[in-house]
This record gives sequence, C-alpha cells and structure tokens, in this order.
Amino acid sequence: RHELGDNEIGRKIMHYFRVDSTNGVALKLVGEGAPHGTVVVAEEQIAGRGRFDRTWYSEKSSGIYVSVILRPALPPSTAPILTLMAAVAAHQAISTSTGLPVDIRWPNDLLVDGKKVCGILTEMNAEVDRLNAVVLGIGINVNHSEMPSELNTVATSLKIEGGRPYSRAHILVALLKELERKYHLLLDEGGVAIARRWTAASTYATGKRIRVASNSGGFQATTVCLEPNGALRVRRDDGREESLVSGAIIEVK
Amino acid sequence: RHELGDNEIGRKIMHYFRVDSTNGVALKLVGEGAPHGTVVVAEEQIAGRGRFDRTWYSEKSSGIYVSVILRPALPPSTAPILTLMAAVAAHQAISTSTGLPVDIRWPNDLLVDGKKVCGILTEMNAEVDRLNAVVLGIGINVNHSEMPSELNTVATSLKIEGGRPYSRAHILVALLKELERKYHLLLDEGGVAIARRWTAASTYATGKRIRVASNSGGFQATTVCLEPNGALRVRRDDGREESLVSGAIIEVK
Repeated sequence: RHELGDNEIGRKIMHYFRVDSTNGVALKLVGEGAPHGTVVVAEEQIAGRGRFDRTWYSEKSSGIYVSVILRPALPPSTAPILTLMAAVAAHQAISTSTGLPVDIRWPNDLLVDGKKVCGILTEMNAEVDRLNAVVLGIGINVNHSEMPSELNTVATSLKIEGGRPYSRAHILVALLKELERKYHLLLDEGGVAIARRWTAASTYATGKRIRVASNSGGFQATTVCLEPNGALRVRRDDGREESLVSGAIIEVK
Repeated sequence: RHELGDNEIGRKIMHYFRVDSTNGVALKLVGEGAPHGTVVVAEEQIAGRGRFDRTWYSEKSSGIYVSVILRPALPPSTAPILTLMAAVAAHQAISTSTGLPVDIRWPNDLLVDGKKVCGILTEMNAEVDRLNAVVLGIGINVNHSEMPSELNTVATSLKIEGGRPYSRAHILVALLKELERKYHLLLDEGGVAIARRWTAASTYATGKRIRVASNSGGFQATTVCLEPNGALRVRRDDGREESLVSGAIIEVK
C-alpha cells in the first residue's frame, strides 16, 4: 500500500481470504526464503492460534489477522523483547486510531476495559545461537458487533467499546508503521528502550496485584518492573522477588 | 527399519535420493505436523548446510545426511544442550561402529585425527517460551575416498582414516538408537548428565588451549569445563573466566 511509503515492513503484503492461520502461512513463506518485512493478511482464519495452543476466534472480515516476518540478526534469547515490541506497537496503533484507553497485560495482551481486544503469538525459526526469522502474529478484534458468549466476559472488540466501527485498513497501516519504528528503536537503542515504552503503556508494570498461573498451583504477587530482556519482576507476599520469563498472569482485584 | 525395534526416533523414516538439504525438508515436515522421531535421510544434498551459513559437502551415496525431528516439551533455552546431546550420540555411534578414536570440538564438531568427519546443524521452530520442534541435522563423511582439495586439511572421512569402507546403514541405525537413549537421558536426568558424557568424550572440555573467534578479533584461552546448559567455561590468559554460549573455537598448538 502506498501509504506505507518506504516502510520495510509491508513492502510485500500477501492478502488471503481464508487461511488456517496467518502464522502458519508466514512460517511456510519463511521456509521458502521470504524476506524481512513480508506481511500476511487474511480476512478469515479457520484455525487461528493463540498462546498455549489456544484458538483465536477470527470472525470473517471483522478483525485484523496479520503476521509479520522479521529477520533480525539477533540471538533467540531476544525473542521475548521482540514480542513486547509488537505489543507496544499495537498499543500505539490502536490508541491513536481509536482514542480508546488501551492497557497491556504482561506479556502482550491488549485490553480495553479489562477485556482482550488484541493478542500476539510470536513464533520463531532459529539456529541455536541465531534467529533465522521471527513471525509476529497479531489478531485485533475490530468490528465484531458482539463476542461469542463463551468469550464475552474476557474479550471485546474496538466497535463494542467505542460504539462505532473503525477502518481495518487504517489500523493495519498504523500498526505496520509503528512496528517499523519500534523495530528500529530496538535495534538502535536495545531492549531498555522497548521496556521503557512498554512500562509507560501498561498498568501491569509496577505495583499491580496479580496472580501467576503455574503448574504447581500459582501464587499471588505484586509487580515491580519490566526488565530490559522482557521478564517481569514481581515480589511475592513473603518479600522474595523473582523474574517471570514466560507464562500467564491475571489481575487480582 | 526393523533393527530399530521400539525406538521412537526412526519410527518413520523418509528416504530421498536428492534434496536441497535434509534440514530444509524436515522443517517443512514440521510445519505439516510431522511427529516426534520423524527422520529424513538423503543420498545427496545439493545445498547441504552447516553452521554460519556454511555449505556442507555432500558427495552422493558416500555420506550419511540425516535430519531428525524432536518435539521436546522444553523451553528454547535448552536448544544448546540438545545439540550437544546429538554430538554425544554421534560420537558413541561412530566410535563403536568403526573403532576409530573420535574427539568432539565444542560445541559439536566430530574430529578424527584433528579433522572433521561429522557436523551438526540444529534448527528449531519455537514460541517465545516453548520449543515446538527441534531439527537435528547430522552429516557424516563415511566412504569418501578423498575430500575436495579445499577441504582436505580440515575434513576427512571414516574410510580415509580407517583404511576401509563402512556400512552407512549400520552407522545410521547405531546413531538413531544412541539418539533415543541420550534423549531420554536428557529428559530423565537433565543437562548435567549430557554434559558429563560430553566431557568424557571431548579433549576440549578441560585444559585445552583454544582460540575463540569473535567479531572483535578473538582471543586465546584455556578451557575450564562444560556447563550443564551447554556453555563452555574458559579462562583468558589474564585470569578472567567467561562462558561461551555460541560461536566457534579452534585448537591452538
């Protein structure tokens, strides 16, 4: 799209009507050598995927279902900060396009009024010491008039929250431009610059009461800060601090 | 092959005459959902790949060119020890099949008489906090009568070193059985068990004078030990110690 100017991200956009999942298509393109900045967009995903093998509800022509291929010359250990970078970019794009108050729940769920409007699934193809490609899959609930009943306590759409429809094309262009900016910010200034932006955008960064899910039952804690590698530092109620590098948290009210 | 008994690794073996690279084929199969233990074997690779974008010389029907798909429920940070596990398995398979004295150069080159007979390229498909699949690509120079002139100071074959040809099928079966054993050892006892086996098999583990290649020019050091995560601990000549997590080293004589 000409609105993207000299953006590397989106120089090549592949548009599909129906796919299993945009990340699946993108990973296949990675194997075929697709260059940095290749973007896969679909109107509908019949097997949209989220983290932890969850599905992503992908109502036809209502949401943005996009995957972006990046080829950074970085080690695999930087993948967490790349996914937080995507959260910061999506936060900025949705905020400026809609004016809605958007929050980020660690690591990278975007919430409006405490409900999810955007999810991010990062997958990578790597050697042991080198990322070959990162695929950022981003799903945004834009013009859904209502969410399925099993989701409507935890998920919402921009239209439901804003009371009006929004242009998907406009939000997508804003998203791709923001990804380009934040990607270069990360390369130029490192993870600390991304962590600072994330901290400014998220109420979960500091002083939030949360519950950490875990195989051994989970625990409650208070957030301390986001570290430059993307880990969330938390303080347990007995005073011990630890850094969460993966997993899921929920707010405790 | 029936000789593999109830090995999970090799339950499905796909044999090709000519491929670009066995890892490329395996990564494509990963995307299509190929199960743990799927094995890709080729008679010839026309674009065989090694680490650092190097090529792997793959003379037709003379070597073993194999890729193994593993699907461990482990985080991406365990990939280095998985690749060392492959080196230990290949070391054992080649030693017992040929009786030749095999060494391992960190992280995972197999040497006979100081020259390379086997290389390993590990690639992975992962989410930020979870390995989806690991592809272990293993190339072994078996029955090459001579190596190309540009390689013959750094590479050799089992036949050149042993003075007789060896059965590729026999070595491959031994390799797949050893991979199965060492994989379960890793899952059951952790990286420390693999590090111990690696240390017993490699003259590079302790007290070896090496040169570390680096973008900023490199330096000389003496090896101290292999850590359970796969990093090589070294002592610089000024006494400072550090852990190498990736890269390449050479012996200093």
